[in-house]
Amino acid sequence: MAARPRVIIIGGGFGGLTAARALKRAPVDVTLVDRRNHHVFQPLLYQVATAALSPGEIASPIRWIVRRQSNVRVLLAEAQRVDVARRTVLLATTGTTLKGHATEPDGSLTLEYDYLIVAAGATHAYFGHDEWRERAAGLKTLDDALVIRRRMLLAFERAELEPDADRRRRLLTFVVIGGGATGVELAGALAELSRHALAHEFRSIHPDTARIVLIEGGPDVLPAFLPPLRAFARGALKKLGVEVRTGATVTSVDDDAVEVGGERLPAGTVLWAAGVAAAPIGRALGAPVDRAGRVLVEPDLSIPGHPEVFVIGDLASVTQDGRPLPGVAPVAVQEGEHVARVISGNSRRAFRYRNPGDMATIGRAAAIADFGRFQLTGWIAWVAWLFVHILKLTGFRNRLVVLVQWAWAYFTYQRSIRLITGEDRG
Amino acid sequence: MAARPRVIIIGGGFGGLTAARALKRAPVDVTLVDRRNHHVFQPLLYQVATAALSPGEIASPIRWIVRRQSNVRVLLAEAQRVDVARRTVLLATTGTTLKGHATEPDGSLTLEYDYLIVAAGATHAYFGHDEWRERAAGLKTLDDALVIRRRMLLAFERAELEPDADRRRRLLTFVVIGGGATGVELAGALAELSRHALAHEFRSIHPDTARIVLIEGGPDVLPAFLPPLRAFARGALKKLGVEVRTGATVTSVDDDAVEVGGERLPAGTVLWAAGVAAAPIGRALGAPVDRAGRVLVEPDLSIPGHPEVFVIGDLASVTQDGRPLPGVAPVAVQEGEHVARVISGNSRRAFRYRNPGDMATIGRAAAIADFGRFQLTGWIAWVAWLFVHILKLTGFRNRLVVLVQWAWAYFTYQRSIRLITGEDRG
Repeated sequence: MAARPRVIIIGGGFGGLTAARALKRAPVDVTLVDRRNHHVFQPLLYQVATAALSPGEIASPIRWIVRRQSNVRVLLAEAQRVDVARRTVLLATTGTTLKGHATEPDGSLTLEYDYLIVAAGATHAYFGHDEWRERAAGLKTLDDALVIRRRMLLAFERAELEPDADRRRRLLTFVVIGGGATGVELAGALAELSRHALAHEFRSIHPDTARIVLIEGGPDVLPAFLPPLRAFARGALKKLGVEVRTGATVTSVDDDAVEVGGERLPAGTVLWAAGVAAAPIGRALGAPVDRAGRVLVEPDLSIPGHPEVFVIGDLASVTQDGRPLPGVAPVAVQEGEHVARVISGNSRRAFRYRNPGDMATIGRAAAIADFGRFQLTGWIAWVAWLFVHILKLTGFRNRLVVLVQWAWAYFTYQRSIRLITGEDRG
Repeated sequence: MAARPRVIIIGGGFGGLTAARALKRAPVDVTLVDRRNHHVFQPLLYQVATAALSPGEIASPIRWIVRRQSNVRVLLAEAQRVDVARRTVLLATTGTTLKGHATEPDGSLTLEYDYLIVAAGATHAYFGHDEWRERAAGLKTLDDALVIRRRMLLAFERAELEPDADRRRRLLTFVVIGGGATGVELAGALAELSRHALAHEFRSIHPDTARIVLIEGGPDVLPAFLPPLRAFARGALKKLGVEVRTGATVTSVDDDAVEVGGERLPAGTVLWAAGVAAAPIGRALGAPVDRAGRVLVEPDLSIPGHPEVFVIGDLASVTQDGRPLPGVAPVAVQEGEHVARVISGNSRRAFRYRNPGDMATIGRAAAIADFGRFQLTGWIAWVAWLFVHILKLTGFRNRLVVLVQWAWAYFTYQRSIRLITGEDRG
C-alpha cells in the first residue's frame, strides 16, 4: 500500500483552517503549521482593541478546533523556507518566544510534502514608511489588539493627569488612518467608548470631547460599498462625532502629530488601518507576485508550474470578472474549501467566489449590509451583522459568552474589558 | 467653611478599594492611586494562569467600580515617596509604560493629604535568590498570570516538536514551589489541564503523563488548615497525579532544573508560590517593619506617632491572639472598612478580624473549607467555594460570564482560554 499523501498547510487563519477541516475524510495526512497556537476570528478583532470583548472570546486554540480530526497534526512553528523543487518546508520552532529556556537550542525541522497549501495571510504595510510602524499601531493579531487597547486607555488616563490644556487636547486626539471596514469600525467603536462607557468616570477631563479623526486617501470611506450605503456610514460616523477626512494623504507620522494634506494634527494615539502587504513567504515560492506581494495564482489556485502548491486567502491574488477579490474571510474560506476539493478529488476546476454579502458596523445599532439583491442599513443591518458574526464564531462557548457581552454592552453602554496590561515596547 | 479633609489611598486592591467605597458618605475627598487601572480578584488569578478564565473576567477598571462615588478620583500613577512630616505623597505617572510617546516628559505630582491609607500590597520574595525570579514565575498580577499561562502552554507545544526523549520529559515537568493555597491551586489546576483539557489534542506526546511536582519547605501543604483538611487535600492532589514533596528545601533554580534536597529535578516550567515581601513603600514610612517588610501597626492600624497614616492589607503586620493575620482578601477588606470608620467617625477602636472561613480548591469538585464551627471537604466544599467566589466577584457581568465558563469547564472538561499571547522577556 502506498503511503498517504502528505499535505502541509502553512497558516491557521480562515483559509488554512478551512482547508484542514475540509480534508477531514480525505485519505491524506495533514500538518497544519502556525506561528501562533490560536485561530483568531479577525472580523471581531476591533472589538478586542476597543475593550468590548476579551481575546479568549474571539480566539480558539487551533489544536482544539481540529482535536477530533485524527489525520491532522498541529505544529506551533514558523515556516521559514519553502523549496518547491524538493518539496520541503523548513520550520523554525518559535523557541525565541520562550526565554528562560535559553539552553534549548532553537530547533528547526524539515518536512516533506506532496501537497502544500500556503495560507500565511498578510501583515501591515506602511507604504514605504516603516518608521511609522511604532507610532501607528496596526490590527492583525490579538497582540496588536492588546497594544491598541492599552494605548487608547492610557491616553485617557494620562489626560486625566495632565495639567497643560494643549497636551491634554493632544492626548485626547485619536487618528485612524484608513477608511476601509477596519478603520470605520475602529473609529466608530472608539467614539462610542469615549461618548458612553468612559463619559462619567473621570474628574478632570471629559472623555466625550475626545477628537476622533478618520483619514482616507480615496474619495470616500468604505469604497467597496454602494454609494447609498457609504452615505449612511458617513452619516452614522458624523452622528458619533467622528471627523471624516477623505481625499487626504498622510505625509508624516511622528511622536507628536500626524501630517495630513499639509496640516499638522497633534495626536496622542495613531491607528493604522490603511495598507496590507502579503506575508513574505509568498515571494519565496518563486511564483509571480503583484505589487503588494500577493501570489498570482492559476485558476485552480495553484502556482504556475507546480500543481501541488496552492496559495489561498490574503496571500493570493485572484481576479474574478476583471476585479481582484478582497482580502476578507469568506474569500479565504471558499478558497480553502476549493483547494481541499482539488486535493481530495483531484479535479482541477477553476475557483469561483460566491459573495455571501458584505457588511460593516459603525457602532451601536448602526451597520450597512449588501447582499447583492438587497441592501440594509441601520438597526436591521446591525441585527443581521450580529446574527452572522455569532453564527460564524468558532465554539459554542464563545458564542454564548460573546452574546452575553454584547447584550450587556447594549443595555448598559459599557465596555467591559478595559484592562491596561502588558508593556509597550513597540 | 473649612475644606473637606483629603484622603489619599495608595493601592486599589481589596484593602484600598474597600476603604474608598466605605468612605462613600463621609465628608472627605478621596484620591485613589494605583499603578494599574484595574482591581484584580486575586483569589481567581490562578484560574487565569491555567487558562480557565480570561483576565477581563476577574478584573474591573478601578474608576468603573467607583464611578458613582463623586468624592473619589482615581489616578493611574505610582506612589514613589511619602513624606509623613509634610503629609505629602510624590506620584510618578506611569509614563514609561507608554512608549511611542517619548516626547512626553514623565510627569510627577505632589499631593497633600490629611489622611493617608497605604494599601500597596506585597510582591514575590525569593529568599535572597533574586536570580531565580526570571525562571520561577510568581503570581500576583494579571501580567504574571499571562506569563505563566504562556509558559505552560508553550511547554506542551515545544514538547510536541521535541524529538529527544529526555528533553521532552524535561519540558513536560512542572515544578510548583510553595505548598500554600496558591501553590496547591496552581498544581491542581495544572494537573487537570494536562489530564483532561489537553489529553487528546497532541499527536507525539501524551500531556496526561506530564509530571507535576509540588514542593513545600514545611512539614505539610496548606499549613493554615486543620490536619484532617490537609489530609483530604493531599489525597486529592495524589488522585490528580501531583507529586507532593514536603520538608523539602529548594537550593537552586537554573535554566535546566530545580535542585531540591540535593536532587536535581530537570524541569521546563517553574512556578513560584513560596514567599511574599511587602511593597517597598512600607519601609519609606519610617515606622517599624517586620522581617518581610510589613509595617507593624498600632491596634487601630495607624503607624506609631502618626494617627493620620494607616497601613492595611498585605503590607500591614497585625497580630491577633498571638498569631499574625494572614495575607488574604477578607483581612484586607475588614481592615479597609475599619480605617474608613476611624476616619469618618474619628473613633479609635482597635481593629479585630472576624474570620469568615478559609477555603482552598484542589481541582474539579474537590475543595476544603473551614468555617470555624464546621469543616467541609470534597464536592460540597467545592460548591461552597464556587458560591462564595461568584458572589464576591465585582460586577454582575463578570459573575454571569464566569458562571458560564465554569459550567462549560465542568461539563466538557475543557479549558477555554488557552491562548499564547505576548512575548516573554523575563
